[in-house]
Amino acid sequence: MAHQHISKTLTVKSLGIDTYREHIIYMRSDCHICLSEGFSALTRVVVSLKESQIIATLNVVTSDLLQEHEAALSNMALKRLNAKAGDLIAITHLKQIESLSDVRAKMYHKKIDDVAYRRIINDLTRGLYSDIEIAAFIAACAGDNLDLDEIISLTKAMIDSGSRLKWDEKIILDKHSIGGLPGNRTTPIVVAIVAAAGLTIPKTSSRAITSPAGTSDTMETMTTVDLSVERLKEVVTKEGGCLAWGGSVNLSPADDILIRVEKALDIDSTGQMIASVLSKKAAAGSTHVVIEIPVGDTAKVRTQDEAIKLQYYFKAVGDAIKLNVVILITDGTQPIGKGIGPSLEAMDILSVLRNQNDAPADLKEKSLIISGALLELSGKIELGKGVTKAKQILESGQAYVKFQNICIAQGGFKEPKFARYKKDIKSETAGTVIGIDNRKLAKIAKLAGAPHSPSAGIYFNSPIGTKIEIGQILYTIYSEAEGELQYTVDYLNSISQIIKIV
Amino acid sequence: MAHQHISKTLTVKSLGIDTYREHIIYMRSDCHICLSEGFSALTRVVVSLKESQIIATLNVVTSDLLQEHEAALSNMALKRLNAKAGDLIAITHLKQIESLSDVRAKMYHKKIDDVAYRRIINDLTRGLYSDIEIAAFIAACAGDNLDLDEIISLTKAMIDSGSRLKWDEKIILDKHSIGGLPGNRTTPIVVAIVAAAGLTIPKTSSRAITSPAGTSDTMETMTTVDLSVERLKEVVTKEGGCLAWGGSVNLSPADDILIRVEKALDIDSTGQMIASVLSKKAAAGSTHVVIEIPVGDTAKVRTQDEAIKLQYYFKAVGDAIKLNVVILITDGTQPIGKGIGPSLEAMDILSVLRNQNDAPADLKEKSLIISGALLELSGKIELGKGVTKAKQILESGQAYVKFQNICIAQGGFKEPKFARYKKDIKSETAGTVIGIDNRKLAKIAKLAGAPHSPSAGIYFNSPIGTKIEIGQILYTIYSEAEGELQYTVDYLNSISQIIKIV
Repeated sequence: MAHQHISKTLTVKSLGIDTYREHIIYMRSDCHICLSEGFSALTRVVVSLKESQIIATLNVVTSDLLQEHEAALSNMALKRLNAKAGDLIAITHLKQIESLSDVRAKMYHKKIDDVAYRRIINDLTRGLYSDIEIAAFIAACAGDNLDLDEIISLTKAMIDSGSRLKWDEKIILDKHSIGGLPGNRTTPIVVAIVAAAGLTIPKTSSRAITSPAGTSDTMETMTTVDLSVERLKEVVTKEGGCLAWGGSVNLSPADDILIRVEKALDIDSTGQMIASVLSKKAAAGSTHVVIEIPVGDTAKVRTQDEAIKLQYYFKAVGDAIKLNVVILITDGTQPIGKGIGPSLEAMDILSVLRNQNDAPADLKEKSLIISGALLELSGKIELGKGVTKAKQILESGQAYVKFQNICIAQGGFKEPKFARYKKDIKSETAGTVIGIDNRKLAKIAKLAGAPHSPSAGIYFNSPIGTKIEIGQILYTIYSEAEGELQYTVDYLNSISQIIKIV
Repeated sequence: MAHQHISKTLTVKSLGIDTYREHIIYMRSDCHICLSEGFSALTRVVVSLKESQIIATLNVVTSDLLQEHEAALSNMALKRLNAKAGDLIAITHLKQIESLSDVRAKMYHKKIDDVAYRRIINDLTRGLYSDIEIAAFIAACAGDNLDLDEIISLTKAMIDSGSRLKWDEKIILDKHSIGGLPGNRTTPIVVAIVAAAGLTIPKTSSRAITSPAGTSDTMETMTTVDLSVERLKEVVTKEGGCLAWGGSVNLSPADDILIRVEKALDIDSTGQMIASVLSKKAAAGSTHVVIEIPVGDTAKVRTQDEAIKLQYYFKAVGDAIKLNVVILITDGTQPIGKGIGPSLEAMDILSVLRNQNDAPADLKEKSLIISGALLELSGKIELGKGVTKAKQILESGQAYVKFQNICIAQGGFKEPKFARYKKDIKSETAGTVIGIDNRKLAKIAKLAGAPHSPSAGIYFNSPIGTKIEIGQILYTIYSEAEGELQYTVDYLNSISQIIKIV
């Protein structure tokens, strides 16, 4: 960055304050730089140390916490700048960020072009945006505010914002399920089956956005998911597949920045979702992708029409970036499996892979449908015979062996655990389950601590159609902290029923 | 707030950190509350001390800055909670904020109703929203995304969010000028003329949003603007008018919260602008209002069509809340007066009120037009004779006496000052000025430090039509800090010309 003139320096002090991703610099209100540069609380400044630069927000210190020649940095800022106590840092004005005028145009519902999206995503990736600027961009793109051209521009900009994996094989498979359906954790089973079939599926997943668990949160209860690009390539070369966290391999890093704020706002807009999903697939080097869209009253996608609109966008954007996309529209009326939350979902996955009698039939069935579609899409298995082949690989135990080998290649396998505190929720009426509010169920699992407490969540016993007696356990809430469990139960007592029994 | 259960307490420590309006609580990562409640960095929590409660964002401390039983609060949080070192505070979970689902609906371009706006504004005023949530609401309302019903709902909700002044007089006058035109500081002159005519004009103004000075910033260089409701009433009862800061009398407090984030995002949307302006007028107890809309290529309102659309909304919303609104569409092609920035604009105002020979004719003329419209709107002066009457009051010196008396009643009068550092910008060509980029001019005044440095800004010598010689001073930049002046000059050298000379 050549657009600042560097004036004066301060000595770094570490206060040990964790402000998460937003970088904070602490400076005395009477320090010579604040005075001469006219900085005040919340000014955004450029902090430089040798060749490194970050943007930080100023918090002014009005006490003796710092001496006059000192400045402190938040933990993440220290790390990003590679600074330690005693280093000399320079603090200068931040130049106007030109791409923010593109964000403003988008807020005013104008269509913006390829160049504008590239500028926005580039500045975002360089850490130039504050959290409120990111929030404004997300809100401006929410709803149906991006047309097809814009989604394509955003997707391309996001692909180019990070590294891109290259593979020798001609066909690289991938899958994605639209969220909103608790416990819908088919990915580890699908990767195991497809890799056991001799195909290549270098799967990277995200952590939870607005749900109680993402695939990476779940996998992390069984193995290491934080792999470098080199380690990921080794695992895939050896086993044909992997189950890694996408964030650690710097694929579409802009997406990770956007997702953090989307999570805080609890929204997920159409255009950004499509760009997010497809940019990660393209950056991972995939060529053929199956995308599952569960549809249900309380799933993320609520109607068949909405699913068909998404299908259109996914296929059109896929065409534009040379990705072969197949859509599966599935039943999203109730949770899949029994566990909701990282460890509890991992237990379901293992029971399916181990062909246990108590394995959830719905999780198994859906995993086979997706695996079948991938086997057929690869051209290796004849159309119409994919599911049968997938079933044979799973039931023969080949998929479980492959899953174990992938975990071992990633750093070792461990069994997921139950949380320390639990509370059974029992039925006060008798009858048959006729409906489930997935959103509230997911919310309860989150209040109980999932995903930040990996073993927290819900073990669910009452799918639609279950006959229920008075006093029968509908589900069990697990939590790692007593306070969270109590708070969750308090919340539960304050809302209308989650499971409809008549 | 009855919706949290209070569990445990920590001892308050003051670290003296100013984070501006967002409240921050600092807690050790290994403190018993963090552990038992599952709190982590950026969790939003409820902090309670006796009967007071605030919402704060958690920054986790990983060092010995705090002892295990201690928590620190940012300066503003300490003040709002009325807490001091040694007090025992309780920290509990923040319950889901229900009105955020209304914000999400708005992000998805849905029309939301009276009840929804009331809910949002109520929660906003109670301090329940984080900065990114406020940013999302602002972005969702930007552009033309609010229809007339929604603007009326938002305006009513904002009026009800704070206190409302009551007056004995039947006719209470007020004025407002849409921003974007540097130096357009007619208000103090208008208030002096109208009050001198024996009418009532309890004027409250804002500080700058995206401009180099607001009326309150300018008035603050001459007198006290931070008046309590009681003091404001005293001043108006005695003098017929006042020139106070709206923020200190708690009129439409939701607006102050929104404006702070709008300022950081550098946007000002139609619906929110109308609600902001009219809610302040209604809350101030006004009955008759003149609103000036300057139109020009680089003013906030760029076309006549846009001004006429605004006129429609202002009048329609005015009708709905029983406010008699008159619109004046004026020429906004160039700055008004010579000063841009609080002190420099104050000097222009004084020169007009003092009837000096060098007083800017444009500022005087526009002040007379607005004053004339108000005199006629009051019914006290016949239609068509307002400007003549206003001119007589100004030129006779009655307006200056009234202005002095208002300042004295508010706490005393002082002369505005020039800043310590200055730089003359000279012309490199000869010719005639044919155009001025108001936005860039305003930006330069801001870079130089206005409004946070009151005497910073621009003294402008080259209105449209001025004959210019090579080497002639086009304008002078003033700054209170050497660094800011240098940075402003650097910026100036990096952009295309601001004043077009042919």
